[in-house]
Amino acid sequence: MIPQQLWVALPDSLVSDSNHLRGKTLKIGAVGRACSIFGVSRMYLYKDSSGNYEDDCGVIKKVLEYMETPQYLRKRIFGQVKALRYAGLLPPLRIPHHKLEIPLSKVRVGDLREGVVVRVGGKNLVDVGLSSLVPLESSMREGGRVTVIFTSQSPELRCRVARREEIKEYWGYVVKRAPSLGKLVRSAKANLTILASRKGKAISKIWLDLVGEVKDSRSIMLALGSPKRGVFEILSDEDMNPFQLSRFTVNTIPDQNTTTVRTEEALLASLAIVNLAINL
Amino acid sequence: MIPQQLWVALPDSLVSDSNHLRGKTLKIGAVGRACSIFGVSRMYLYKDSSGNYEDDCGVIKKVLEYMETPQYLRKRIFGQVKALRYAGLLPPLRIPHHKLEIPLSKVRVGDLREGVVVRVGGKNLVDVGLSSLVPLESSMREGGRVTVIFTSQSPELRCRVARREEIKEYWGYVVKRAPSLGKLVRSAKANLTILASRKGKAISKIWLDLVGEVKDSRSIMLALGSPKRGVFEILSDEDMNPFQLSRFTVNTIPDQNTTTVRTEEALLASLAIVNLAINL
Repeated sequence: MIPQQLWVALPDSLVSDSNHLRGKTLKIGAVGRACSIFGVSRMYLYKDSSGNYEDDCGVIKKVLEYMETPQYLRKRIFGQVKALRYAGLLPPLRIPHHKLEIPLSKVRVGDLREGVVVRVGGKNLVDVGLSSLVPLESSMREGGRVTVIFTSQSPELRCRVARREEIKEYWGYVVKRAPSLGKLVRSAKANLTILASRKGKAISKIWLDLVGEVKDSRSIMLALGSPKRGVFEILSDEDMNPFQLSRFTVNTIPDQNTTTVRTEEALLASLAIVNLAINL
Repeated sequence: MIPQQLWVALPDSLVSDSNHLRGKTLKIGAVGRACSIFGVSRMYLYKDSSGNYEDDCGVIKKVLEYMETPQYLRKRIFGQVKALRYAGLLPPLRIPHHKLEIPLSKVRVGDLREGVVVRVGGKNLVDVGLSSLVPLESSMREGGRVTVIFTSQSPELRCRVARREEIKEYWGYVVKRAPSLGKLVRSAKANLTILASRKGKAISKIWLDLVGEVKDSRSIMLALGSPKRGVFEILSDEDMNPFQLSRFTVNTIPDQNTTTVRTEEALLASLAIVNLAINL
């Protein structure tokens, strides 16, 4: 079976209800966790045109990327950045590519690790969080992050850049920016787009239809609005209606008892339901 | 249709992985939110016998009860308590009985409000968060929390204790302690008990069976373990196996990609799925 791609689209106003970086960081942490649990491979941050959330968007992207990076590469890649001031509060993701250090002698041919390319004496080496840098047989720019596969064992440890099909496990997410929700849905071209909205159809009413559609889709994008402005309001800025973009404009929490549901709560609940549909 | 009762059972070790009251408070906040979104009416905190979590259990109960109490009654009911030191960080629930103050003249016969009984000059009055105390036609002990229904309008505003069947909306939750998970499941006598466990059957495999069972159940209890010790480990302390208690021992997050799923994450995901089953 071809592995399914799961993408998530969130507004850049996601953390605008927290005044402080500490609160923003915790909220982003919950988003990173939810996406990792369910194996989201792409996260899009689209512009919510109700305000200028440029700074917040930078923080969201940086914090999400930091969470996704294996611990041993974080210092090398991020250094000291203001957006990461509260990164110590972030919950660990503990996803497959966040590997622990093992003795060089335990590395096997075919093992995968994330690394960063380093040039030493004209040679390409890669820092993969082991006790020494490992020669890299592929040519890559210095400082670039790579997934490598080991091609020979200790004491002649060597590796090359892994091909996508060699990665069988969940290998984290990338974070991209998008100009608007409407433009994103049209350009991303997911086989199935699900727009989560309180004003959408109750999930229970279109469940079987959704399950069938999920089966046929290699890529699924789940898009959410903010608690202040749902996808109906956000798309109206582009003179669009969610149903023009997808008949799967869905209320994933029918009969909610709280006045609002926070984006990170709606995200986790919606991903749980999409995951169930995928596994049925 | 008879309204369905949804109950949740959580271990008292729930917040033991946070060292600080601040972190514990935030985690409890997420639990209170998840239960409110999905209309949970009872929360049980059962003893996890892997340690002594008595102090934590007190904190969890206090914080959850605080969250559930309408803002205008909080000072009267809770005063200054150490467990509530970080209560300012808690997300508001915004559930139906968290009503705002309205002018006395706007109160209508049949309106419901939460209140606390106050005795003034030998008379029973009730503080319902309005600009004056309201005479109560029922006899209740002073300091007791009551749900009242208004029986006459301003300027002769009066109320009595509401009967359960007069409350049509979600009206919050109660928090109870339980000696152990096994004893709780046997004594609570829910029509359907769902034990969430990574080692349970994949939700996708027993979905239709669960949906059918949910339809026939007036009370549903969802029980979770802790990330450190799932329901299998916790029940083994009582020489029990989850399947002895319920054939619905279920992994609600099949194919999870993180090593562990936190209890508050599993709770929200599982409730989203139970809610879908209820609404199908």
